[in-house]
Amino acid sequence: MHLTYRSAGVDLDAADEAVRRVRQYARATFTEGVVTDIGAFGGLFALGKYREPVLVSSVDGVGTKLKIAFALDRHDTVGQDLVNHCVNDILACGAQPLFFLDYFATGGLKPDQLGDVVKGLASACREAGCALIGGETAEMPGLYAPGEYDLAGFIVGVVERPRIIDGSGIVPGDAVLGLPSSGLHTNGYSLVRRAFGLDSPDARAKLEQYYVELGRTLGEELLEVHRCYLKPLVPLLTRLKGLAHITGGGLPGNVVRILPPDIKIRFRTSQWEIPPIFRLVQRQGGIEDAEMFRVFNMGIGMVLVCAAKDKDEIRSALPEAREIGEALPRGEGEPVVIEVS
Amino acid sequence: MHLTYRSAGVDLDAADEAVRRVRQYARATFTEGVVTDIGAFGGLFALGKYREPVLVSSVDGVGTKLKIAFALDRHDTVGQDLVNHCVNDILACGAQPLFFLDYFATGGLKPDQLGDVVKGLASACREAGCALIGGETAEMPGLYAPGEYDLAGFIVGVVERPRIIDGSGIVPGDAVLGLPSSGLHTNGYSLVRRAFGLDSPDARAKLEQYYVELGRTLGEELLEVHRCYLKPLVPLLTRLKGLAHITGGGLPGNVVRILPPDIKIRFRTSQWEIPPIFRLVQRQGGIEDAEMFRVFNMGIGMVLVCAAKDKDEIRSALPEAREIGEALPRGEGEPVVIEVS
Repeated sequence: MHLTYRSAGVDLDAADEAVRRVRQYARATFTEGVVTDIGAFGGLFALGKYREPVLVSSVDGVGTKLKIAFALDRHDTVGQDLVNHCVNDILACGAQPLFFLDYFATGGLKPDQLGDVVKGLASACREAGCALIGGETAEMPGLYAPGEYDLAGFIVGVVERPRIIDGSGIVPGDAVLGLPSSGLHTNGYSLVRRAFGLDSPDARAKLEQYYVELGRTLGEELLEVHRCYLKPLVPLLTRLKGLAHITGGGLPGNVVRILPPDIKIRFRTSQWEIPPIFRLVQRQGGIEDAEMFRVFNMGIGMVLVCAAKDKDEIRSALPEAREIGEALPRGEGEPVVIEVS
Repeated sequence: MHLTYRSAGVDLDAADEAVRRVRQYARATFTEGVVTDIGAFGGLFALGKYREPVLVSSVDGVGTKLKIAFALDRHDTVGQDLVNHCVNDILACGAQPLFFLDYFATGGLKPDQLGDVVKGLASACREAGCALIGGETAEMPGLYAPGEYDLAGFIVGVVERPRIIDGSGIVPGDAVLGLPSSGLHTNGYSLVRRAFGLDSPDARAKLEQYYVELGRTLGEELLEVHRCYLKPLVPLLTRLKGLAHITGGGLPGNVVRILPPDIKIRFRTSQWEIPPIFRLVQRQGGIEDAEMFRVFNMGIGMVLVCAAKDKDEIRSALPEAREIGEALPRGEGEPVVIEVS
């Protein structure tokens, strides 16, 4: 027996071909900070001039939204989801992105699939002015099912220390605004998949079903790209006291992360329209209201807290923002209260 | 039917318990640069004073070495493997670590398993003076088999721009030294698993077999922690022209990454002892010499290139270093030549 790495399920030549494509997409994202081409042992990025630079980093995955991409064999959106998720996370601290690295792990490398994923990563990186300077492509036969992969991303951004946004200045009477999400973003997909029975062999047929209330197929709705809030919010960062990116844990799980111990926020759902996909998922799964708000963003992708006096200026800069709640003294009870109507 | 996130296979309470443990381990790694506690949307790290800071980043996984950890139900070493791999990668550019983030993805969260993994991450981070400032724990039922997980890590370090090490100054006549690896490090495990038939149900019994030539069980040998080269090399960085971390691709695949176009390196295997594990794997799998050198580190974990005049000083600072090759004009032929004896 002559055993080679290829016969053990790892194809270094296919990996080389995939790496060539990845480099091409990545190069198109390079900004002036990028020091080297890809291929060195690390990605090199010159920081430039800052007074008190604080690096802000985040790591995320796409979760089981990947399973929807697998079922529809469509791989050019999940990379955008991942980058936008990461960009929003560091934006919530007031930081703007510098560079991004990805981790792509699969049972057997398919250069087309990886190419589409990286195309998505690169397009969202370019939109955000973020350089894709590195990545790891891991071939792990036996850990992933054939045709499946996992995808994680890592972002580094920077903020001047006095410009960090952390919610610490929030006081009673501050305004609470919400920016609409584009759909489920990247959270709650395990619950959605269970509600619609998407683990079954006919998942694709279910995803290709057209829903009048959605105005498109279920699959199109579920693969809608996680929205990036960078461009509308950058001009307003100095006016914002707190920013919460609404991901896993929903409004209560994420807004609590920016609240001072003596403050609560009360949301009134009458102030915004909950998009049809959430109603559909809730009906399909027979899910309680509280669970829906704990798992999904329910139509609000980013929560902004600002002084009452700045509210009108911010609302006129962000016509789609809704005033969805208010900051109050915490007193007894939960830090985040949602009045469902 | 009332569907909740828990019944869909995602347990947010178990996740909370796991996060508590993770925070405890992570806090023990915090260095003076860390600005916030974990829980914000991003990990915050104050850079401190540099003249021309270049950030050096890398992303890695542990590969199918994880499968050995699963078979032996031992989870406190893979985190060390991952951190040390990342530290070595950025060290090869001359950078020292600042902070680290991990991505842990599993089918169903087991707090003990995650706790052990993060314990390993944190212990290696502490050793390297690197702060573990963030991470993502993803529960993805249906993507991972029960009890299994994947693990990726992201590191950011810094180097002053004039101190970047990239091999560009290598000239004919430079000395080539090698530092011993501690074993397979994190590469070639798919081939090893095939060679020993470790995909079978009796994998654990095979891993618990004692080998006289190894002086321990196969499993102990295969889980040996990927060595970190930071401490011995930091004092010598200004004397080094090139550093290659020997990972997937072996000596030829990694050393080529630091060579100027007119230089080749010739290695002579007579200059170092190839550890018994590599001979055992080769025999077991009937693997050709060339394939062995293309896949495994073959006992050399880090290659150092320095001016001939600096060689003696470096060798006396690193008693375990061996002079394993030399830099030559490239001429015709391959950039990396291995003379096997």
